Order: sequence, then C-alpha cells, then structure tokens
Amino acid sequence: MSSPLAAVVLCAGKGTRMKSEKAKVLHPILGKPLCAYPLKRALELGASPLVPVVGHQASEVEKAIRANFPAATLRFALQKEQRGTADAVRSAEGALKEFSGRVLILYGDVPLLRRETLEALVAAHEAGKGPLSLVATTLEDPTGYGRVIREGGKVTRIVEHKDCTPEQRAVRECNAGIYLVESSFLWRALAEIRPQNAQGEYYLTDLVEMAARQGPVASIGADATETAGVNDRVELSARARVMQQRINEHHMRAGVSLQDPATTFIDEDVTIGADTELGPLVSLSAGTVVGRNVTIGQGSVLSASRVADGTTIKPYSVFEEAQVGERCVIGPFSRLRPGTELSEEVHLGNFVETKKAVIGKGSKANHLAYLGDAKIGSKVNVGAGTITCNYDGVNKHLTELGDGVFIGSDTQLVAPVSVGDGAYVGAGTTVTKNVPPGSLAVSRSPQVNKEGWVARKKEKQG
Amino acid sequence: MSSPLAAVVLCAGKGTRMKSEKAKVLHPILGKPLCAYPLKRALELGASPLVPVVGHQASEVEKAIRANFPAATLRFALQKEQRGTADAVRSAEGALKEFSGRVLILYGDVPLLRRETLEALVAAHEAGKGPLSLVATTLEDPTGYGRVIREGGKVTRIVEHKDCTPEQRAVRECNAGIYLVESSFLWRALAEIRPQNAQGEYYLTDLVEMAARQGPVASIGADATETAGVNDRVELSARARVMQQRINEHHMRAGVSLQDPATTFIDEDVTIGADTELGPLVSLSAGTVVGRNVTIGQGSVLSASRVADGTTIKPYSVFEEAQVGERCVIGPFSRLRPGTELSEEVHLGNFVETKKAVIGKGSKANHLAYLGDAKIGSKVNVGAGTITCNYDGVNKHLTELGDGVFIGSDTQLVAPVSVGDGAYVGAGTTVTKNVPPGSLAVSRSPQVNKEGWVARKKEKQG
Amino acid sequence: MSSPLAAVVLCAGKGTRMKSEKAKVLHPILGKPLCAYPLKRALELGASPLVPVVGHQASEVEKAIRANFPAATLRFALQKEQRGTADAVRSAEGALKEFSGRVLILYGDVPLLRRETLEALVAAHEAGKGPLSLVATTLEDPTGYGRVIREGGKVTRIVEHKDCTPEQRAVRECNAGIYLVESSFLWRALAEIRPQNAQGEYYLTDLVEMAARQGPVASIGADATETAGVNDRVELSARARVMQQRINEHHMRAGVSLQDPATTFIDEDVTIGADTELGPLVSLSAGTVVGRNVTIGQGSVLSASRVADGTTIKPYSVFEEAQVGERCVIGPFSRLRPGTELSEEVHLGNFVETKKAVIGKGSKANHLAYLGDAKIGSKVNVGAGTITCNYDGVNKHLTELGDGVFIGSDTQLVAPVSVGDGAYVGAGTTVTKNVPPGSLAVSRSPQVNKEGWVARKKEKQG
Repeated sequence: MSSPLAAVVLCAGKGTRMKSEKAKVLHPILGKPLCAYPLKRALELGASPLVPVVGHQASEVEKAIRANFPAATLRFALQKEQRGTADAVRSAEGALKEFSGRVLILYGDVPLLRRETLEALVAAHEAGKGPLSLVATTLEDPTGYGRVIREGGKVTRIVEHKDCTPEQRAVRECNAGIYLVESSFLWRALAEIRPQNAQGEYYLTDLVEMAARQGPVASIGADATETAGVNDRVELSARARVMQQRINEHHMRAGVSLQDPATTFIDEDVTIGADTELGPLVSLSAGTVVGRNVTIGQGSVLSASRVADGTTIKPYSVFEEAQVGERCVIGPFSRLRPGTELSEEVHLGNFVETKKAVIGKGSKANHLAYLGDAKIGSKVNVGAGTITCNYDGVNKHLTELGDGVFIGSDTQLVAPVSVGDGAYVGAGTTVTKNVPPGSLAVSRSPQVNKEGWVARKKEKQG
Repeated sequence: MSSPLAAVVLCAGKGTRMKSEKAKVLHPILGKPLCAYPLKRALELGASPLVPVVGHQASEVEKAIRANFPAATLRFALQKEQRGTADAVRSAEGALKEFSGRVLILYGDVPLLRRETLEALVAAHEAGKGPLSLVATTLEDPTGYGRVIREGGKVTRIVEHKDCTPEQRAVRECNAGIYLVESSFLWRALAEIRPQNAQGEYYLTDLVEMAARQGPVASIGADATETAGVNDRVELSARARVMQQRINEHHMRAGVSLQDPATTFIDEDVTIGADTELGPLVSLSAGTVVGRNVTIGQGSVLSASRVADGTTIKPYSVFEEAQVGERCVIGPFSRLRPGTELSEEVHLGNFVETKKAVIGKGSKANHLAYLGDAKIGSKVNVGAGTITCNYDGVNKHLTELGDGVFIGSDTQLVAPVSVGDGAYVGAGTTVTKNVPPGSLAVSRSPQVNKEGWVARKKEKQG
Repeated sequence: MSSPLAAVVLCAGKGTRMKSEKAKVLHPILGKPLCAYPLKRALELGASPLVPVVGHQASEVEKAIRANFPAATLRFALQKEQRGTADAVRSAEGALKEFSGRVLILYGDVPLLRRETLEALVAAHEAGKGPLSLVATTLEDPTGYGRVIREGGKVTRIVEHKDCTPEQRAVRECNAGIYLVESSFLWRALAEIRPQNAQGEYYLTDLVEMAARQGPVASIGADATETAGVNDRVELSARARVMQQRINEHHMRAGVSLQDPATTFIDEDVTIGADTELGPLVSLSAGTVVGRNVTIGQGSVLSASRVADGTTIKPYSVFEEAQVGERCVIGPFSRLRPGTELSEEVHLGNFVETKKAVIGKGSKANHLAYLGDAKIGSKVNVGAGTITCNYDGVNKHLTELGDGVFIGSDTQLVAPVSVGDGAYVGAGTTVTKNVPPGSLAVSRSPQVNKEGWVARKKEKQG
C-alpha cells in the first residue's frame, strides 16, 4: 500500500580526524564497519535498493559493504569530488533512475540510529503527506547546529548556526540531517540547490525550505545519542560503548545474566538463550549462538561458534567457528579452532587445542593436548600431553580414535593412523601404525636405573 | 537487656521479569544468591531465628539458604499463594509461635541494605518504644512510591501513590517497606488487615497506621541505593556494581591497592592483607584469604584459596581451593586445582596444572606440566612437559618425588611410582618403576641420524 | 633569556591513610611511583636541578627517584621532622645554595598536574614580574580549602577555611599550593614564617601575603582534577583513572583504535603507530613500542617490548622485553620472555613459551612448546610439544636449528645440540647429539600392538 522505499547512505568521506589510512566508514565498531549499521537499519525497514554513495577509497568501501549485504539490494553510486551533502545525494540519482517512491537519506558514520526512530519517521511522513520529512534533536547546547525554524508550529526551513538571528539562536531544536523524501521532489529540488560557501559546497539542508513551500514538512524527535556521528576515534569508542550498552541491556531483559555489563562485548548478530550467565570480559562475535543455561567464564572469546544448552565454559577459553554440544565442560584455557565439533558431555581442559576435530559423546582431553584433524569416538580418554602429528611438513593427515579408547599421556599419534575401539595406548608411545580394537600399543625402551650415578657425576665435575 | 530479635525475610516471589526458570531470590550476586544478603545482615544483627518465607520454588530456595546459613538459626515458612506482603509476613506466624520480641521484616530481593542502617533502625525503635519502626528514603522523584505521611512531625500512616492527595504527592519521603515490629503487635495487626485491591492482596503498609494509633512510629532515613530491589537482570547487575564498589573501597581504605577497581571482583567473605596489589580483572571468590605484600596479576581468578605473604601471582592464573605458601612465584597461565598445597618459594610457571599436589620448599615446575596426585619434596626441578600419569583408566595413583630430584623434560611418571631423593630422570623418560635415591633413570632408544634422508625422500616424492 | 628554573618537589610525607609500609609517594600509578609524575613535569619544563625533599623512608624514596631520573639533574634535600610545608621547602635551601632564579614548588603526591598548566604558570610569572605566582582552582564546594583573597582584582593573600570571614567563605577560588617563586625572595621569606598552630607547623601559604607586599602575585587557573592529591588508595585509583583516560585519548586522537578505552592500560612512555587496534584489557607498560597496523587482542600484556608493523597478536599473549618483527602472528596464549627476538612473519601459537630465543623469518611453533636459549633459522617448523632441554640442573645451554628444519612433535632437544639446515627430526625423538644437515634423526622403540590385551586385563581384574 505504501509507496516503495529506497535508501541513500553517504559513505564517501575520508574522515581526516580518524588519522587513518582507512576510510572513516570502514572503521570497525562491534566487529562491523561503521557504515554497516545505517545500511542494516535501512534494510530492516524494507528499503530496496540500498544506495551507498562512495568516494574516498571507493573500491574498499564497496567491497566491505558487499561482504555484509546481499548483492541484489545494493546499487553503488560514486561521488567523484566531495562537494557537500547535496552533491553526495545527487550522485545517487543515476542509481535510482528507475525508482519512484520515498528515498531515505542516511549517513555512513552515524551508527546508533535506531530502527524504531526510522519507523516513526516513515509513519510521520505517511501521515503528513508532504514531500519531505526529517529527524530533529533537541540539544541543551545547540551551538554549531542547524536550527529547525518553525512558523505557526510548521517547519519552514533550516538555518545554519552562523546565519541565525539572536532569536533563532535560542531555538534548541536542531536538524539531524536525516530525511525521508519523495523521489518526485528530490531530484528536481537537488538540481536547484546552489553552492552556499567559498568552498563551493552544496548543502542538503536547502531541501527543507524548498519542500516546505510545496507541502507540510513532518518531523520526529530523536535523542542526540542516536544521531551523533563519528569524527575521530574517541567518538568511535564512545559510540561503541552506547551500542554495546543497548545490546547488553537487550540480552539482560531477555533473561541473560551479565556479571559485569561494562566489560561484556556482544556483537549485534548474537543469539543467547535464557538463564545463560556471562562472566566479565566475555566477548561474543557475530554469528555466535549460545543456548540456555550455559555458563561462560571470565575472559572467554567466542567467535562464530555454537554452544548448546547446559554447557559450562571456564575462564579464558577461545573458540573460533567451533560447535559445542550439550552439557560439555570446557576450559579454562581451552582453544577450539575452526572445524571443532563436540558432541554432548565432552570435557576439554586446560591448555588443550582442537582443530578440525570431531569428538564423540562423553570423551575427555583434560590437559595439555593438541587434537588436530582428528575423528574421536565416544567415551575416549585422551591423556595429558597427547599430540596428533597431523602435519608431515607437506600435507595434513587424519587421526581416528574409536569408542572407548584410552590414550596414555604424552602419546604422539603420527597421522594417518587409527586406534580401534576399546584399545589402550601406553604413556609415551609414538603411534605410527594402526592399533587394532582391544589392543595395547606401546613403543617403549625399558627403564634403566643407574644407581649412584648422581654421586659419580658430582665427583667427576669435581 | 533488649528484647529478642527475629527476622522474617520475604523470599517467595517468582520474579517474572527475570525471565528465568530460577526463582528471583536465587539469582547470584557476587557469588551468592540474592536472598543471602538480607539474611546475612539479619544474622549479623543477632537475629534468631531467621524466617525465610518461601513460596515459588520453595524447596530450591530452602536448599540454597540452608547451604549458606547454620541450620540452628533457620525456620522456614511457606506462603502458599502470593497474596501480598502482609500475607507473606503472616505466613511466618507459625514459625514464630514461641517467639516473643521484635521482628525485623526484610526482603530477599533487596541486597544492598547495610548493617549500619539496620542498627540505626534498632536504636530508633528502642528509643521510640512504639510498636513499629520503619526505614524511609527521600527520593527526588517519588512517583509510584508509598508516601510517609506525618502529622505534627509524627508518622501517622503510609499512603500509596495512587491514593495520594495533591498535597501528599508533594511528599518526597517514601516508605522502604522495611520494618521492625513488636511481635505482640504484629500478629494481631496482621489478622486485621483487609485486602486492598481487585487482586485480593494484603498490604503490609496498613500496619503503619495501626501502629501509629498505639504509639510512636520511629523512622530512620536510608539512601535509595540501599533499599532498591531487583526486578530484572539489568537491576541485578546495577546492584552488583554498587555492592562491588563498597567492597572494593573497603579494601582500598584498609591498605589494598586495586589498579582498576571498576574491573576488580571481590566477594564479601574475602580477606586481603595490607600492601597487596591487585591488577585489573582479578576475581577473588568467597573464602579466599590473601596475605600481605602479595601481587596478583591481571586476569587472575582465585576461588576459595589461601595465598601467604609476599607471593607473586602473574597474569591469568586460576586457583581453586589451592593453598600457596610465602614468597612463591606463580604464573602466568598457571592453573592450581583443589588439593594443591605449595610450601614456601615454590615456582610454577606457564601452562602448568596442579591437582592434589603437595610441593615442598623451593621446588620449581616452570613450563607445560601436569602434576596431579603428587607429593613433591623440596628443591625439586620438574622439567618442561613433565606429566604425572595418575590415571590408568580406572583409578588414580600417587607420584612421589624426593628432595632435590631433577626431572628431565617430557618425562612421564606412570603412577604409582616414586623417585628417591636427589635422583635424576633423563629427558623423555617413561618412569614405570621406582627410582632409587641418587640414581639416574632413563628409558631411551639411541638416536639414529639417517644422513641424506631428506634428499632421498624428496626424490621419491618426485 | 628567562632566568634559571629549579624545582622543589615535596616527597617527605608518610601518608598514614595509605595504610602501607611504603611511603606514600612510592605507591605506583601507571607503573611508576607517584612522585615521578611531578618530577617529570618539572624536567619537561627544563627545571634543573630537581630537588626532591625526602623525609619518611628517605633512602627508599631517593632510590626510587634515582631509578627514574638522570643523576645529574637531582639534588636531594632531607626534611628531618614533618613540620609543615614551609619547613619542607626550607629544607631545600641548602641544595639550592648556589642557585639563583625561579623555584617551582610541587608536590610528590599530586600526579595529574599537566605540563601545559605549568607552562602557563611560567608565562604568567614572566608577564607579572612579581616575586611569586600561584595556581588556583575554582571549586563548586570550597569547604576546607584556603581561599585566594583579592583586593581590586589583585591577589593579596591566602586565608585558610577556618579563618575565613563569612564573606571570604563565599569565595570559590582556592589555592592549589603550587608556586613559582624567585629564589631571591623565597629563602628570606621562608625564614620569616612563624608556626601557625598548636602542632608548631609552618605553612607555605604565608608566602603569598609576603610576596603581595613586594609586587604583583600572578595566578593561573587550573582544573581541580589536575591539582588533586592522593591521600588514600581510593584516591590513588581515581587519579590513575584520570591519567589513563588522558593517555588513551591522546593515542586515539593520534590514530590508534581502542575497542574499550575504559579497560585499556597504557603507561606514559609507550609509542603506538597509527591504525593499530587494541582490544579490551590490553596492558602496555613503559618502554613498549608498537608499530602501525598492529592488532593486539583482548587481554594481552606487553611490557618493555617492541612490535613491528603489521603484526597480529591474538588474545592473552604476554610479552616481557621481547622483540617481534613485521607481520608476525602470535597467540593466543603465547608467552614471550626476555631475549625473544622474532624476525618477520614468525608464527607462535597457543601455549608456546620463548626465552632468549632468536627466531628467523617465516618460522613457526604453533602449539605447546618451550623454546629457551635457542637460535632458530628461517622457515623452521617446530612441532607441537617440542621442548628445548636447556637446563641440566647446573647450567643453561644453547639449541641451534638451521634453516628449513622440521622438528616432529614432542621432540626434546637436549642442549647443547644443533640440527643442521633442512634436517628432519621424527616425532617423539630425544635429540642428544647434533643432527647433520638434510638428515633424519629418530630415537624410537618399535611400536608393539598386544592384541586382546584389554580383554585379558579385564579378566584378570575380575
């Protein structure tokens, strides 16, 4: 029923104050580039296409956006020179040539704008039926901001701070620069904007007065926190803090306990079940899915991993693309690398590393071990110091351990090799050939005790 | 001289907004269930019996409380239906049938009330000689709270926010719901309270007006922080923060240096000596006792452990029920499990795990080792990669190392086994039988160097 | 052109409220004793000599200061009894007998005073041409502070809070106690100060009135944060927080990304290149130099280390006096001890410790290893569980690995020993003699599989 919606997101700036070789909108915040947030908000609103206007480091910015959004919704526009916001939006005209409907104008360096605020903007626009609607923020100290000027309550235009009359300066309602505009009005109006300053820049704010002449300009209020941009890395970290607080409170209200929300780092696309408890300094990166009744100890770092219900993760465990079943006990100091797949009730303890390791129900490797390229059955006990020698200097090979296998401490499993169900490997064995089920494998020189050796040695050393 | 004191602590609620399968008062805050704090404050005040009124998940709540308090002081009461606070207190009547004296009424979800505040309440009650005394808080914005109504300065009753006249609404002194009541008045008055609302709930606040008719109602003021309850997990974490801050400041004022109090987590029942320094993200759980001049490095986690004077703990060391002597040097990345008992000047280094290990003065295990079920003498040097093979798949066995023993790297000690005083074990040995004192033990195949092997291998691989 | 500048820094107090066996000014803040900060600020201003006035624990304080400052600039003065600030400064007269010029008076327990503020004081003093200039702070609540009393805008004297008239109490401009004084005036004036209280203490504030009689007293304003002292450990941690915030913001504005500035700990003398990213709980101690485009993961601790451009350090890596080349990949859980020198593109992985280890380009030790006293060539692959047995119980010995060497897992390298270029060591080998280039070294007992052993064992066990 409502007309189509497109979004133009300005991502062309350099961001000099970032002091970086990287374009401003590429700086990460909670694991994603800054510009991913306004783009994502627009996508959630149903906007299509999304038109990122790129300029500085155009190809890097385009690449980063493509990595985060479906190709079908994207149409890139290039702003060749930085000649102001009106010029930037106008660069998107070509990309939206076929498009007729409402155009949402957002900024790649304004990451905190909430979906609810944009929904309110859309609602106000639909109610107002004018050519343009805008977001305003009311500031304690509006110095430097463009004021929203009203006559008889109706928005008539934006006046820049430096152009304000004393009376206008007293206005505390400021323009956030975020607009929803009818495309039928937008392109024509942009063509009429003239440069406003010595630098020859074209300002988008001029649109408001033009729109007000044609119909009502609807406005909705937003908190200044939401509309704040990022100009340097101090601001970047301040925005990250607010974003993190929002995410953390969301999870807490949904039934997740955070021992210290101030040091809990959870990206946007993370799912956590109720009654799960996170210790301080836990970091959960995008793509991570944590079940119910999970305990994640202090300092653990989970990235793109899945953890099933009832599992306990002790402090300082690091997971990357790992899958952990129900009621496992992991850590402290466990490191699960990509391709780790643990069944239920697996125990991995301190100083244990796994990689491409599929481990069956109830198996244990509690101390100092490296299990790489391994297929391990259920109820296996892997002794301390066990190492899968998966790499021969050229290729990687597989180690297979059957159900109920017992691997003695300090065993080397020289892959490719397999140990059959129920077999037993003595401590210190170098396993170079397969072990049949139910066998004992050892490779051991007999222990020799040379009595009196220490005294003789000391004599010699004089 | 003063009359007996009992405490009724309301622990029956579900706490829907916690979004939990667990009753609200069981949610942990600084390592203990929420309800342990008001109970502990009452106990410190000398209250006996303590009467927790349970209802939702009654048996789990009872179990958790029994785990934290002496059985002799506890008498549980059951509130079958949740019919308001007056009904909850009335449920305790049976448990206090024989009791005559003062009854303190507290809440299982109000963890921050200080002992000093309760002492002030008791003192005001004794001075006032009335049937009931209460705690009041003065709020900037009292919206929603019951107001303390006074006439000629004397408390006459509590009026709920919704029932306030405009004049009463202006009152900022609010009822915290915490009372000290004479038992002779309490049970009779409770029997007279009538349901006040559509839900048929009985409100405790009605007591105040009844009491004021019989004698002076004393009141003491408390900070709103102290009387704040917990309704969801955002509030739970906010209360935890305040509690942590109090505890941390207490230790700092007593002579403990906290590099970053905001990320230092210390439970209530922890003792720390003067001139001890804690790095950021150090966590000390209940039962931990740390001596003087101890350094605990960043990220270390100590639970129910004792650390003597002058010991240095480097970053990321994890102790559980461990005992560490004077002037030891531990970590980084050491993990001491239950039953670890270190004498003086023991050094344990990175990636070393101990469990049921008693280690003598001056002994060292500085790298990559597992010492489980071990009795180790003094001046022992345990080489890197040493492992006690304490588990044979069925039972655990003991390893004994005498004084002055030198264990070469990568040794496996297949328990039960002992190495006599001053003996020496060569690198890579699998020790399967006892080593006499002063001996050298080795189990080693001679090293063979196959010259030209690498070139031949490459030829073969073509 | 301007006259010589000396600095007197008062470091004689005990600091009773620190509850410490250590003198107050020795308490560390960001890795240095408290008193190092005002001394350093004076040094940056070009003051010479620096005269620390010591008293309580004089020799310890002197030693700590000497450890941080060039001997040539230091001249110590001893205050035998603590008889007030005027007496303390007067103790410095002997040390400055030969000196003629301006004397800056600072406090060893005021660590946050900024260089810019002192520069402003110097400039005001030069402009004013009076005998004394001072720093003032304007406080919301000046209770307890000495007020700056002006007549006709000119400073005439300081009046202590308790001596103020009601009118003077309303003054919010307070004396910070920091002065710049002409030596020609200072010593004469100090000699005239009389004890002001029952304890017989001599107050420095009396100088101001004496100076005002001789010429204009210039004053500059400073933020109360800057002039705040340290009286207990709560204040110590509060000052540390402000200092850390300043340092962190400085780095952020210079192009360093801090994911969570609130938990990033960077000492004053640390250099970090642009586009470097630090995770939460990263600690960088004095002397650390980090290049550009470096990533330092959560929880890493670097002390007196150098890290070149483009290197990635994963979480929980601990470096002490280590040098790391370009594009290395280190961690998680790597521990680099003193004498570690990594060339370019070296990879060290989890649970790996190095000490006095020089490692060539592109070499790798990715899991569970101890490399101590080692010289390792380029393109070497060190297998999991490899240990250099560098210590024979008496001395440390060197292990040398040539270029392109492949060390199989769980190898012990019994030093002194060398492995020639391109040689290959089989898994589980105890290398006790040198391995020629291109050879294969093994020391291995043949593997024996005892079939049916497990069943027989179970039968026996009944």
